[in-house]
Formats: sequence, structure tokens, C-alpha cells
Amino acid sequence: MGDLTLYAMPSSGNSYKVQLLLALLGRACTQIRCEHLSDALAQAKAAGALPLGKVPALHLPDGTILSESGAILWYLAQQTPFLPQDPLAQAKILGWMFFEQNRMEAVIAVRASLRCYPDRAADATPERLAALLAEGHALLAIVEAHLTGGRTWLVGDSATVADIAIYGYTHSSGARGGFDMTRFPALQGWCARVAGLPGYIPLQAPA
Amino acid sequence: MGDLTLYAMPSSGNSYKVQLLLALLGRACTQIRCEHLSDALAQAKAAGALPLGKVPALHLPDGTILSESGAILWYLAQQTPFLPQDPLAQAKILGWMFFEQNRMEAVIAVRASLRCYPDRAADATPERLAALLAEGHALLAIVEAHLTGGRTWLVGDSATVADIAIYGYTHSSGARGGFDMTRFPALQGWCARVAGLPGYIPLQAPA
Repeated sequence: MGDLTLYAMPSSGNSYKVQLLLALLGRACTQIRCEHLSDALAQAKAAGALPLGKVPALHLPDGTILSESGAILWYLAQQTPFLPQDPLAQAKILGWMFFEQNRMEAVIAVRASLRCYPDRAADATPERLAALLAEGHALLAIVEAHLTGGRTWLVGDSATVADIAIYGYTHSSGARGGFDMTRFPALQGWCARVAGLPGYIPLQAPA
Repeated sequence: MGDLTLYAMPSSGNSYKVQLLLALLGRACTQIRCEHLSDALAQAKAAGALPLGKVPALHLPDGTILSESGAILWYLAQQTPFLPQDPLAQAKILGWMFFEQNRMEAVIAVRASLRCYPDRAADATPERLAALLAEGHALLAIVEAHLTGGRTWLVGDSATVADIAIYGYTHSSGARGGFDMTRFPALQGWCARVAGLPGYIPLQAPA
């Protein structure tokens, strides 16, 4: 396997998902830091390094560029325990990954960005923050209900890319998003299990 | 293979994606119609038939419920030409599917729903419609750029679940969303190719 290059935003949950899987796999990767509003991000876009206009993007040795965190996780996890081959398990895993990208990110990550990035402060109206708080608690409750009753991982008996995808923003939704995580004890236990995986690395703080 | 049951909203692009793949595969499936705001939708939610709170949901003969259109497509397409086994092809396919669910749906489908569902009219302010129009054109331009230059399908040499996922809302984005599709000739040609696939069925009109 040749050298991989990851364009990543250090403070972003989507980039972190890929960084976390690489760390858990012990896999080397050159990383290009493209922080929110940075010159490096603008330069990467202008150079065509981000075909869909966003990080993360993974550049393969043959020049192929993979976009979208979920797709990159799927590629890197092939032939590892993080991606079972069973079709039904794969569909269940993708169900959580699409749920996260279609519904959770637009609420959990957006509320965190409104609170943490100064350039978003003008959009952080009390009404919007209140609506996102209620929506986020409802979404976290769906994951909590799934984990309640003895499930250790989201799908099957070991950690998969579904766990990594949901963990990316969920684990910081209390500190960054202002969500009340004490309501979700099963989620908190699951977060601790992810953080205990060999090779685990934490999310970087916003710049 | 036993009987499948699909809970679907006839006027929704996400439900249509699953219905279209079933038709292209010639696969039988019992369908429960859960139209927007219908009693049937409320009853399905109350009965626990929609664990993530939304249609489509596919009920398998063993009682397993699969949620999220992309995950259902992935399950149904296994061992068919619509889902290649090559890991890199799979990652490229998922890249388009996550792009659609994370970025396109929130703009293309939302603008269409604001225009087509009377209960959404109060949210359809001129400012919001104008912002969604500009964002949607930018997103459609990304797909247009990918298809320009001789690509017949989004990934590889035949139709895959990536094409079905992007087609679900894109093909009606002119009529329902008010987007100017004459700007995107490659997309229009690709839409015609999807509509020409053997077994194709059209999207139902909003009720």
C-alpha cells in the first residue's frame, strides 16, 4: 500500500472520523491541515484537491480522490474488523451512517458550530439554538434507545465504521453542542468504550 | 427469498429510490403507503414500524427492519450489477450517496417540499427560496461537472445505486424544485438514460 494523503479540518468531526479510523488501524497517512476559514483550505479548493468542495478528502497513490467521510471510512475499513462482509450487517451499518449524515449532523454539528466558531455567531439566534437543542435531544434519544438493553456496539459484537461515524460528533455534543448528555447513559457508556479502543486518539480542540 | 414489506411515501424521492430499484430488479414487495401527513404514516410510527421515525423502512421476512434509503438500496443491490464488489468502486458509489443525503437533499428536496406541500408554505419565504435556488444550482453543477466529458454513469460503466440515489430527487428538481435544468445538459442526458433502463417506473405526483 502506497502513501495516502488526507485533507482534513482538525476541529471537524467528519475529518476526525477518518483520523480516528486511521489511528485504530495503525495506518500511516500524510495529513494536510485545512482548518475552518484557513488559507490552506482555500488553496486546497482552488487546486482541485477537494472535488466536492469540502474536507475530508483522501488522495490515493494512483491519483484517485475519495470524498465524503463515510465513503472514506468504507474504503479504509475494507478487509478489517471494522467492516463485516455480511450484507445485512453492512446495510445496518450504512443505516446508522446515513442517519448520522442526513439527520444528526445537520442538528448536532450545526449547533456546535454556531456556538464554537465566531464567524457563525450571527446565525446563533436564541430561537435557532432552542430548536436545535430539542431536535438534537430527540435524535440522541433514538441512538440511546438502540443502545439500551445491553448492546455494546451499534451493529454486531465489535466496533464498526458505524460506531466511528456516530461517535465523530456525538462524543463532543455535550461540550461543544450544549446537549444534556446526562439524559443518555447508554450513549455515555458507549462513548467510553470507543475511547477505550486500542490506538484511540481524541478530537482536536477548535482553533 | 421471502416477502419484503416496504413502508413508503409515494411522493418522496427517498421512498422512490427504493421503489425504482425494486422495479429495475423485478423484485416483488408489499408496499404500505404512508403519504405525508397521512393517518397511515402516524399509525406506522406509533406501531414501531419506523424505528428512526421516517420512511422508507424495509421489513424483512425475519422481522429485521432496515431504515434509511441508502442502506436499503445497498441491501437490495447486493449480488446484482447495481452494486459492484470492487472496494474502490464501492467507496466512489458511497461518496455520491453520502453527498446526496448530506448536501443535496437538504437543498434540492427541501426547496421542492416548500413549493409542493401546502403545510410548508409558511416556511417558503422569498429569501429562503432564493438562497436554496443558488445553493442547489451550485450542487447540481458539481454533478454536472462529473458527468461532463463522456461519463455515461456516475461510477463505472453501468448504472449503480449511486445513479439511483442521485436520480431520486434530481430528476424532478426542475418541475418540483424550480431549478433551471437547462444549465445542466449532461445531467439531463444522464436522467434520460436512467429513465431508459429496463423496468423503469416514474415518481408519483404529490397527493
